[in-house]
Amino acid sequence: MDLDDGTALLTDQYELTMLQAALRSGTAGRRAVFEVFARSLPAGRRYGVVAGTGRLLDAIEAFRFDAAELEFLTANGIVDDPTAHWLEKYRFSGNVWGYAEGDCYFPESPILVVEGTFAEAVLLETVALSILNHDCAIASAASRMVHAAQDRPIIEMGSRRAHERAAVASARAAYIAGFTTTSNLEAGRLYGVPTAGTSAHSFTLLHDSERHAFEAQLAALGEGTTLLVDTYDVERAVRTAVELAGPSLGAVRIDSGDLGVMARRVREQLDSLGAHDTRIVVTGDLDEYGIAALAAAPVNGYGVGTSLVTGSGAPTASLVYKLVARADGPDDDAPMRPVAKRSTGKPSRGGRKSAVRRIDAHGTAYAETVSVGEPAPGRRDRVLHVPLVRDGEIVGRESLRDARERHVRSVAELPPTALQLSKGEPAVPTEFVEGGPRT
Amino acid sequence: MDLDDGTALLTDQYELTMLQAALRSGTAGRRAVFEVFARSLPAGRRYGVVAGTGRLLDAIEAFRFDAAELEFLTANGIVDDPTAHWLEKYRFSGNVWGYAEGDCYFPESPILVVEGTFAEAVLLETVALSILNHDCAIASAASRMVHAAQDRPIIEMGSRRAHERAAVASARAAYIAGFTTTSNLEAGRLYGVPTAGTSAHSFTLLHDSERHAFEAQLAALGEGTTLLVDTYDVERAVRTAVELAGPSLGAVRIDSGDLGVMARRVREQLDSLGAHDTRIVVTGDLDEYGIAALAAAPVNGYGVGTSLVTGSGAPTASLVYKLVARADGPDDDAPMRPVAKRSTGKPSRGGRKSAVRRIDAHGTAYAETVSVGEPAPGRRDRVLHVPLVRDGEIVGRESLRDARERHVRSVAELPPTALQLSKGEPAVPTEFVEGGPRT
Repeated sequence: MDLDDGTALLTDQYELTMLQAALRSGTAGRRAVFEVFARSLPAGRRYGVVAGTGRLLDAIEAFRFDAAELEFLTANGIVDDPTAHWLEKYRFSGNVWGYAEGDCYFPESPILVVEGTFAEAVLLETVALSILNHDCAIASAASRMVHAAQDRPIIEMGSRRAHERAAVASARAAYIAGFTTTSNLEAGRLYGVPTAGTSAHSFTLLHDSERHAFEAQLAALGEGTTLLVDTYDVERAVRTAVELAGPSLGAVRIDSGDLGVMARRVREQLDSLGAHDTRIVVTGDLDEYGIAALAAAPVNGYGVGTSLVTGSGAPTASLVYKLVARADGPDDDAPMRPVAKRSTGKPSRGGRKSAVRRIDAHGTAYAETVSVGEPAPGRRDRVLHVPLVRDGEIVGRESLRDARERHVRSVAELPPTALQLSKGEPAVPTEFVEGGPRT
Repeated sequence: MDLDDGTALLTDQYELTMLQAALRSGTAGRRAVFEVFARSLPAGRRYGVVAGTGRLLDAIEAFRFDAAELEFLTANGIVDDPTAHWLEKYRFSGNVWGYAEGDCYFPESPILVVEGTFAEAVLLETVALSILNHDCAIASAASRMVHAAQDRPIIEMGSRRAHERAAVASARAAYIAGFTTTSNLEAGRLYGVPTAGTSAHSFTLLHDSERHAFEAQLAALGEGTTLLVDTYDVERAVRTAVELAGPSLGAVRIDSGDLGVMARRVREQLDSLGAHDTRIVVTGDLDEYGIAALAAAPVNGYGVGTSLVTGSGAPTASLVYKLVARADGPDDDAPMRPVAKRSTGKPSRGGRKSAVRRIDAHGTAYAETVSVGEPAPGRRDRVLHVPLVRDGEIVGRESLRDARERHVRSVAELPPTALQLSKGEPAVPTEFVEGGPRT
């Protein structure tokens, strides 16, 4: 494997061929503004969640073409020598603004604005979309699960069902959206997401009896551990577990069967054995609907895997990266012209956008106002763009904790319909208005 | 970004806590056999495609715990010192067999068999499943698209809708399944997948007119290039394109509107302008059904993005990694015992499996025969496991071309129902039989 930290080839070939053609035609240096937005949310979803911003800033910083990459590009005739020479010196020197990580978004929300020369900005399309499309999809699904679980903790355990690196990003995005822990160790090391995990069925099957397996786990991990009780017979396993660990057994995990029925039976049994504080964790093909269905069951925590890493039916956020304005000529002070595709099917709006979340007297959001030009926020309104990159320098780094706390505030501000799991309209309507002149 | 080549932390925490408990209980050294299989195919699918094997072998080779990783694990109390010491010396020394990359699979097909001590084999669960679940899902979707496209080429262009590293793996998997090229440059560099790409709408919008944009692209990329003709008005764009490039214009791309209707109009127009050899490439939210619907349209090639990288509705292959046999004691010659979970919902079959694809006199597969013990293949039958790792040494490396060619042969061997896009039963039924004694 020859994976390297560089991100410059995480790029679609057309960006480099466009660069080459623009260098030849003299348009490469025109100032340009690209925006990232979703034309719609996944069917029926009430809001989306911005995630991936921190990873994107890392990727922009690492976006340099090294000698081996340039050699690959020229040897395969993908770019000519003048273009390779230009790429050799590439570093992004423009500006990026975006919705802050963890904030909610809606259809047409301009969640990222990239400003630079056409040449430098066009090259970031793929890596920006890859990161944001994945991480926003995961965080958007995760947020629904977190609210379905109310105050119960959720462990992210989807790594085994996702690409091995996407799994790490998924754990990060889920944490931003409110998951408590992840099973993924690399997410712990790389991003500081708290990790969790105790044992699988294979551990029980390895031993000569379930009793031996439980004894081994308790000896190694202490009585605060979580014992998996559904390898053979749940009732017998719970009896054995409490017999061995005593009433201070941390938790039991149920991974199969009707989780609601099983949880009630196990709770009764635990209580009858005096293990009143032993928690019940349920796992096994849970999604936001399955979690919600267990609201009245005596469950203390959930583990979610497949549905999280697949975005619960929406594995990509359908974000696009569109040129919305460009200079009329090569000079720095050439006037900017709004541009947009005009053909059928996928229209887009020209002009660089600002966005404001309108907040009423009760602190509740009632509109996502997108304008070309400067926004005119009211007293309670929230301007949504924050600076991320200024003249090529990363200025938008923050901790995961900040993004996680922002997400709590952003959801709290939405109208109550936002938390309905049923299909419906976006919780906040997007409106386009004329903005003031940009200063 | 602190991405490294190591794969050891692409692991769920429970594998390490099980290791720690097994080291304490004296069961860590028991011989064990784990198998990877899917209980079912995605709803209605006729076959699955094995992909990711080459990447998995790279990942197994790179699966070593370095000092920083061990420090993370001990500092966070995830493992104790004896376990960290054991991990420090870890390298997989066992055996792996699997279905060869590109081959088809069915429900319960044992596509990977991992044999070693419990300790060394349990650690590979997450990385093996991550890679196979992702790559098999993509290749399985890709194969349907390839057959829907009949002999027309398909460009993979889904990178912008997938995690940035998953995108690279997707390009590789799609190529194995028969896609012609990819837009993803890193897939070109890392795996040698042929790359393609010319321009996006932003390139047209950058220029003062579509004519200027086409001139620039033709000057840089030659008249064999593909011009994108749907930024403003398709008819005008096609006229301009042929006027500038002449009848040897390589291709035009249509990315919006009713692709069948547009393709017919554009073909007529191109022919009327004498550009009989100019090809028509269509893109824009295509999946296998959209491709099939264009079978009678004058289309020369397809570009597929979102539906490919999301597995066209099945973004994970739902493969699991299960302990199926383990030794009764610590010695190398201790008898092996089949093991399986017995509780409700997710039963599995104990015992190490072999698999044979039964082939009739016409060369058509009619059964996937899975047996515990040695297979008893008939004269025409195909034994499905190939050696991948022997005593820790990678022995199963092969070229992508080999996997790609194998896929063609494997699909050709399936009954015709395999290529139906409609939902149905697996093309070949899986049957369990008693195998002979393992020698």
